[in-house]
This record gives sequence, structure tokens and C-alpha cells, in this order.
Amino acid sequence: MTKASVRGPGVLALLALALLGLVPAGAPASSFRRPVRTYWIAAVPVRWNVVPNEHDAINHVEFKAEQTTFETVVYKAFTPGWGHELPNRPTVSGDNDGIPGPTIRARVGDELVIHFRNLDIETGRAHSMHFHGVHYRPGSDGAFVPGFSGPGANVKPGDSFTYRLFAGPDSAGSWPYHDHSPSMVDSIGGGMYGALSILGKHERKPDREFVVFFESQLGFMTIDGRAFVGNTPVFHARVGDLVQWDVLALGDDHHTFHVHGHRWRAADGSSVDTKTVGPAESFRIRWREDAPGDWLYHCHVEGHMERGMIGLYRVSRR
Amino acid sequence: MTKASVRGPGVLALLALALLGLVPAGAPASSFRRPVRTYWIAAVPVRWNVVPNEHDAINHVEFKAEQTTFETVVYKAFTPGWGHELPNRPTVSGDNDGIPGPTIRARVGDELVIHFRNLDIETGRAHSMHFHGVHYRPGSDGAFVPGFSGPGANVKPGDSFTYRLFAGPDSAGSWPYHDHSPSMVDSIGGGMYGALSILGKHERKPDREFVVFFESQLGFMTIDGRAFVGNTPVFHARVGDLVQWDVLALGDDHHTFHVHGHRWRAADGSSVDTKTVGPAESFRIRWREDAPGDWLYHCHVEGHMERGMIGLYRVSRR
Amino acid sequence: MTKASVRGPGVLALLALALLGLVPAGAPASSFRRPVRTYWIAAVPVRWNVVPNEHDAINHVEFKAEQTTFETVVYKAFTPGWGHELPNRPTVSGDNDGIPGPTIRARVGDELVIHFRNLDIETGRAHSMHFHGVHYRPGSDGAFVPGFSGPGANVKPGDSFTYRLFAGPDSAGSWPYHDHSPSMVDSIGGGMYGALSILGKHERKPDREFVVFFESQLGFMTIDGRAFVGNTPVFHARVGDLVQWDVLALGDDHHTFHVHGHRWRAADGSSVDTKTVGPAESFRIRWREDAPGDWLYHCHVEGHMERGMIGLYRVSRR
Repeated sequence: MTKASVRGPGVLALLALALLGLVPAGAPASSFRRPVRTYWIAAVPVRWNVVPNEHDAINHVEFKAEQTTFETVVYKAFTPGWGHELPNRPTVSGDNDGIPGPTIRARVGDELVIHFRNLDIETGRAHSMHFHGVHYRPGSDGAFVPGFSGPGANVKPGDSFTYRLFAGPDSAGSWPYHDHSPSMVDSIGGGMYGALSILGKHERKPDREFVVFFESQLGFMTIDGRAFVGNTPVFHARVGDLVQWDVLALGDDHHTFHVHGHRWRAADGSSVDTKTVGPAESFRIRWREDAPGDWLYHCHVEGHMERGMIGLYRVSRR
Repeated sequence: MTKASVRGPGVLALLALALLGLVPAGAPASSFRRPVRTYWIAAVPVRWNVVPNEHDAINHVEFKAEQTTFETVVYKAFTPGWGHELPNRPTVSGDNDGIPGPTIRARVGDELVIHFRNLDIETGRAHSMHFHGVHYRPGSDGAFVPGFSGPGANVKPGDSFTYRLFAGPDSAGSWPYHDHSPSMVDSIGGGMYGALSILGKHERKPDREFVVFFESQLGFMTIDGRAFVGNTPVFHARVGDLVQWDVLALGDDHHTFHVHGHRWRAADGSSVDTKTVGPAESFRIRWREDAPGDWLYHCHVEGHMERGMIGLYRVSRR
Repeated sequence: MTKASVRGPGVLALLALALLGLVPAGAPASSFRRPVRTYWIAAVPVRWNVVPNEHDAINHVEFKAEQTTFETVVYKAFTPGWGHELPNRPTVSGDNDGIPGPTIRARVGDELVIHFRNLDIETGRAHSMHFHGVHYRPGSDGAFVPGFSGPGANVKPGDSFTYRLFAGPDSAGSWPYHDHSPSMVDSIGGGMYGALSILGKHERKPDREFVVFFESQLGFMTIDGRAFVGNTPVFHARVGDLVQWDVLALGDDHHTFHVHGHRWRAADGSSVDTKTVGPAESFRIRWREDAPGDWLYHCHVEGHMERGMIGLYRVSRR
């Protein structure tokens, strides 16, 4: 991700103009000085194993690699100008492993420039990116509607498109992005989705951030594209850490997110330890960690949990 | 809809008495001066086409009229005294098209008198009306329970019943009404449902109001009884409009409502662009429109979207 | 339930220490003076009839006892030291009938000591208790994870285990508890679940409290283990009562809770009369009763309502 500034009046002035209807909200205005964050993200064919250890440790079921592996297409981040694929840092949740795609990070007030390239040459399918939570003009919507949508909704193999987004004051939070081209349903089922994580203008960065994406692959119920304890992410924190969970879902199912030994405050002040998240819904949870131990996090829909939607959260003492 | 006033102490005094338990909350008290809104609504047999253009434009699927059309019974508004069926104004969302039934409008403090007639003579089924969000005595509940419910829960073909409702301070919002007679499940599946839209005592009317009712008919996933872009309602607004969405659902499924290019503030202050709505749940969204363009609104459960739960929202510049 | 006090600094001091990381939050600290509530709860085999009157009164369907009865295992409360099973007081919702298990009651600031014994000798299955909403050390988590969990997650037939919990300020509310041993899914399907009901430090006890637990048994959709009006609990209140509903769910399905003729205020101030509750979610509703009559409460998912998830709420005048 590259970061730069462009000249002009500040964000507040822009917002004032936007409120007056003189400037469309979310319009990328290159004559204004606001931070620009740039990503280079491609649709890339990969071979993906949903259950790398071929094992459901809780129910003692064994799998074979051919039952748990498939050829698919995912989002991967590249160096500027499509130089080369960025490495995946395993200690950073939702970095560049493939499922989910690279987490797009910004602060309220930032402009986001997302260069997208479709490298899905083999299957010949068009793809796109559609972003939740942020502001954009219709041309950057990335959603296919015959007679209405433009080239960004239907990027052919080998082609590129640049989406321009703006993180408004109402964009703070965690949001999904995903393919919304004509192949949307198959592509999302194959793993073409990721998270946007947007901090408030002056909000403190968390010490730990965990991306939990509920979907299904190959009949398994997955978290970040993997099924069963030992395959799903093991999240680590220490007592005293400011911990943030980005919880998102896509597909056909409603889920309930639960973390053992913990509760959190909802925006309305109520205390919660299990919360529904349906397709394309998302929420962000924060707490100051105070409960050392090895804990489960999982979807509490029992059939989903049994089919893999469960992982480990390990909290060490300071 | 006719409007009138009756004499007596004001609503606040009535509420005070209600709180003291001296007057049942929601009881229609004809000796008090409060506005009365009267509707004449009948259960009427109609022939309904879920996909009038016989076309899924996004997935390029063609249908035949016999696959998408059925005989059913819906709610229709009439002139006072059952003179004649009111025309449907296509520019008014949820007016008198059939699915959904006529939107029942009121303000907090109003009494509602709903005259219902069952004109479903052919199939010989009893019907009723059950209202969410408002106050009423058990006799106006409209829900069949053997041994408990009265005539309003089981209105025989050719018969009539008058429901008396009160919009209390906790009734502001958008709420479903529907058949709750013994034939409830079939009747709701056939389209016997509509919306109540209740403004606060001094709340400003929106410039645009869109009723979005999620259900299913004939195996299609429908919005206001229609499936696929081009059949579902096309909602129109202009930049600067105060826009209101009434989002409701009935049936067996949970949905997630999403509008492209937009976000809204929940009552707890958080920002949302996709929200779960389950059977008989409902919510009301308002925003000041600032994003010109042609946008999609849809249920984000992918299988629902693929089976028709998607429409167009067109915002023009001022 | 026995109640006692132990000596030491107050709860606030303990919390201060907990925040400093010197004392793990929720750790039972027998050297501190705080109220201790003790329960003796066993997994007990029972024969359970989901539809005791063998009748769906609304749809006029008759059943035979062999279609609606099964052998299962439930939680039952005992006198201290496992003397004998406590009687079930039918006027107290969620007392000791079996499904749901005994309601565990506490106030914020209380320590809870739950002695558990597995009397499921016949089937030879291990069982456990896992508690939502409260604080505890990993050893009292009761959830099986191979390589991580201890004896409390896998209590063998004939064995006992003591769980130690703490009701923190964020524990006020209604929460589920359930089996989380390797047999979890079958055990919960068989009825191994119950509610925790935790009052705020100085919160008023309601005049009436109703536990509504949505699950399924034998293909029926159940409330507190029973299906159809006449079998599900009949809740009673009088005008003027402070009424509390504890609404909980487990299993595979999302539900929508609705009470006829009533609405309530959500924590964010909005008015609600139907609310989604997914597996392991829970919420607590309170209102001052002002609507005399015989009302329905039910899950508004139509297929669930048709398969039994419906009951009666009877409000008498003062």
C-alpha cells in the first residue's frame, strides 16, 4: 500500500461542500489535499486446501486432500505497477493469503485508489470489486446491471480497472468487499472477498486485529477459507492488549459469532457475547484483553460449527 | 382514507389515564378528541404475475407466463362504504397494486379504524388482518386461537369486521400487517400482507418513501411480489430529497437489506449499509440523498438475490 | 440454591485488581467477601413428551404418544450434596421441569459455584456445562478442545465437576448455558440447556419472569421443550406487573420472537415488537403490563410457528 497527499482545501471543507450538494459525497477530487491510499489487487488463480491438516480434531474425522482441495480464484495484493505479488505475513490477520483477500486499510478522510486486474485467464470469467461502507460514484460500484453498469462491473480476463473510493465519517468500521460481476455467486463461493478496515479520524489503532470471515467452500463451513480447529486462524493476544475483531459474512447463511470467556459492549451499551451476522453484514468489536487462556471462537449455529466454523484464541499473560 | 376528529380530552391525558391503568392503552375511545383515520380494505382474488417481463436480465434466463403467474388473494383498498376499488397510483410505493396491500398511514396519537371485508368467495377460506406496532384490544388482534379468539380472527367469505387500532408513542415506524386466520401461512405466501407507516407526532413527512417487502411467491424470492430487475419496483429520488425506506419481511427466511452507494445511521449511532430482517421484523431508514446515479438495492443472501430479490434505485441530480 | 458470603475487600477492589491484571477477571477468590450462590445440577435421563396433549389445536392435527415422546438427558437441580432432586414449581418459569434446565439466578457482583454431576450412565456419554455472559477461568469453560481443555469439558458418567463463575457488571441480562462436551450437538438437541438470569447490582426483581427457549426436538419446533398451544408454557400476568421475558435460542435456526398486542423499547430507544434471535443469542425484555387479554407469543418464522413454536400469554385485570 502506498500513501500520498494531494493539494487543496481540507476534508472538512470538502464535506461542507458535499452537504451543500455542490460536490458529490465520495467523489475522488484530485484537486483537494487529502491522504490517498493506493492498492494493487488482482484476481489470481490458486489451488486452495480448506482443511490443510485433513482432520476434524473435535469429531475425529479424517479427510483426503482431494476432498478438501480445489482450484479457485482469489484476490491478491501486488506491488505498485503489478511488479510482483506481495508476500503473506502470517502474523497479520487477513494479510495476503488469498481467502480472505488483502485487508484494505484506511482512516476516515482518506481517498482509496484500488487498481484491479483480472488474471483469471484460464476460466475466462469476468470479475469485479464491489466495496461496502465507503463512498464512491456509480462508476466505481463494481456491480453488474445490464444497461446501467460500466466497465468496472465486468472486467474481462487480462483487463484492468481502477476503483476510486472515499472513507467518509460514516465509513469507520469493518466492511466486506467482493466480486459483483455476472460470476458473483460462484466467485464469492470460491473465495473472492476480503475486508475493509477503516479507523476513525483520530482513532487508536488496536494492538491486535483479527479478521473473521464466515463463508462456505466445498460444503465445509469456513472461517477465512479454512475449516476445523488447527486449520482456521489461531489468534494470539496478551493481557492488556487492545483487541479488535472484524466479523464479516457472505453467502447464503446467517451465523452467530461467539468468543468463549469474553463479552463486549454493543453501541447501544448492552452487553453481548454472541451476535448474528448475515450475508454482507459486518461488525467490529473491541475490548481490552483481561482473560488469559486458550479459548474457542466460533459460529454458534451448531451445524456450521460441526462442519468447521470454529477456531482458537490464545491469550497469554503479559 | 378518511380523516375525522372526535371530542374529549387530549392524547396526553388519555395516556396518563392509560398509565394509571384506568383506560386500556390502545383502546379506541370515541368520547376523546383524537384524529381518526379510516380504511376500507378487502381480501380480493387477483391474477398475479411475479415476473411480468418474463426475464431475469442479470442471469439471462427466460420464463413463460404460466411459470410466473398464479391466482391468489390480496388486500385492496376501497372507497368508503365499499363503493369501488381505489385506483393504484404507480408513483406511490405500496399504494394499491395488491402485493403489498395498501400502506396504512397514521401519526402517533391517531386512532385507526380498519373496515375489512372478505371477498375471497371462490376458495371459501376465512381471512383476517393482524397489525404489528400498534395498540389494540384483544378483539382487534385478528389472530386465530381456538377457544380464545373472536370473529375478527376468522372472517368468513362475504363477511366483514372492523378493527380498531391506536398509534401510541411507541408505534412510530414501519410495521407489517398480514392475515392471521387459520389460512395464515398460505395467505401470506399468496400475498396477503402490507405495511403500516406511522410518523411521529410532529415528524416531517419524507419526500420519498419506498416500501420494500421481502417474501417469496411461486419459488421466486420477491420484493413487493415481483422478482428480478425490471419487475421489482424502480425507486426514484433526487439529490437533496429526504428519503425513507420501509423494510419488512414475512415468510420463512431471514434476509439482509443492502443499498449500493449508501450507508445509514442506526438508532445506536453506528453506521450500517446491510441489515438483517427476519419474518415480521421491520425497520425504517432515512437519509438525505446525496449520491446521484443508478444503484442496486437487494437482499444480500446470494441465493435470494439470484432468485429475484433485487431492484433499481435511480437518483437524479437536482 | 444456597447463598453465603466470604470475607475480604469488596467487589470494586477486586475489579480494580482485575483491571490491573493482578487477579484474573471472574476468578473465584474465596478470600474476598462477596455473595456466593451455589447450585447442584446433574445430567439426568428422563422420558420427555414434546406434545403432551397430542394435539395441534390450530391446525387440527392429532399425534400419537410414540411420535412425540423420547428418552433423553436433561439438567435437573438437586438439594446440596446431591440429597434429592428438587421439585418443579410449575408457577415458576424455567424452574426444574427438565427442558429448559433450572434457571441459574444471580446478581452482578455474585460468585456462582455450580456443582455438576453426570448421571447419564445408560448411554455412557460424557457431558459438561458451558455458560454464556459470565466470567470464568479457562478451567470452568466446559468446552471440549483436544489438547487444551481440562476435566470440566468432558465429565464422564458417574463423575462430578465444579464450575466457578463470576457475574461482572457486563453480565446483567439473560444468557444460555448448555452442554459443550464432545456430545454437544446431540445433547443440546435432546434438551441439555437452560438460562442464566442475572440482575443488576441494585436492579428491581420483576413481578413475573418468563423463560422462552427456542429449539427443536423430534422434528417439532419447541418452546421450553414443548410444541403447540396447550403444551408450550401459558404465561400469566396482571395489569401493572413488571414483566420480564428471557428469550434464548440454541440449535441450527434463527427465529423471530413476537408477542401480540405488545411492543418494547430496545436499548437504543427504538420500539420493537418482533426480534431475531439466533443460536446462543439471547435478550431480556421488560415492560409494565397494561394490556389485559389472552395473547399469543410465538416465533414468527412461519414454518416454525406451524411446527409448534407458539404459546399463550394471559393478562388479567388487577
